[in-house]
Amino acid sequence: MTQSAHLNLKLRIYNDAEIAFGPGKAELLLAIHATGSISKAAKQMNMSYRRAWQLVDTMNRNFISPLVSTQTGGSYGGGTQVTAFGLQIVEKYQKMQRIAKQSVESEMVAFEKLICSSSK
Amino acid sequence: MTQSAHLNLKLRIYNDAEIAFGPGKAELLLAIHATGSISKAAKQMNMSYRRAWQLVDTMNRNFISPLVSTQTGGSYGGGTQVTAFGLQIVEKYQKMQRIAKQSVESEMVAFEKLICSSSK
Repeated sequence: MTQSAHLNLKLRIYNDAEIAFGPGKAELLLAIHATGSISKAAKQMNMSYRRAWQLVDTMNRNFISPLVSTQTGGSYGGGTQVTAFGLQIVEKYQKMQRIAKQSVESEMVAFEKLICSSSK
Repeated sequence: MTQSAHLNLKLRIYNDAEIAFGPGKAELLLAIHATGSISKAAKQMNMSYRRAWQLVDTMNRNFISPLVSTQTGGSYGGGTQVTAFGLQIVEKYQKMQRIAKQSVESEMVAFEKLICSSSK
């Protein structure tokens, strides 16, 4: 019996109806951190600049301190960086994701048996 | 200090890249179960019939057994019901959601302090 279904579980943290943080925002922050630019990060993630900017805006509005700081007046996307606070949020999110995943590990194994492998 | 941010966490279960099950599909199944009809369930969730049907199709394709059975030949949406297997999946999902939420409860309390309340 081949069983190649590859289950994964992703957390999204809601602030009332709005998604304050989730897997896409974590990935975007890490891409901005790596490239130093929202537009380069967007390109890397196959996302429009507008969409990336909206996600950054949502994060910055939902938290008590900015996760991304942008200096205006420079070139497009220049002077952009993930703040120390932003990196801390990514870390906390990844920790929660890890803990949550471990907590349902045995349930996931059982659930996997009910799912078709994608290669079928 | 008033703190009314209301954090929540929702699980999505991925079968490789496709979301096999998540909060929207769980809600849709319960609505189909309550109304006995995909179109009524869609209406109740402010969702197009087409979208609801796609979600049902995704679920039925991803699991080893159908979660929703539809009898063709009847009136529109007639003879539709959530299978016993489908109800079992909802229950398992809700259980995982509960366990995962409990597992990160203390982290969530700490995280909440970093989020602005929506009423601000």
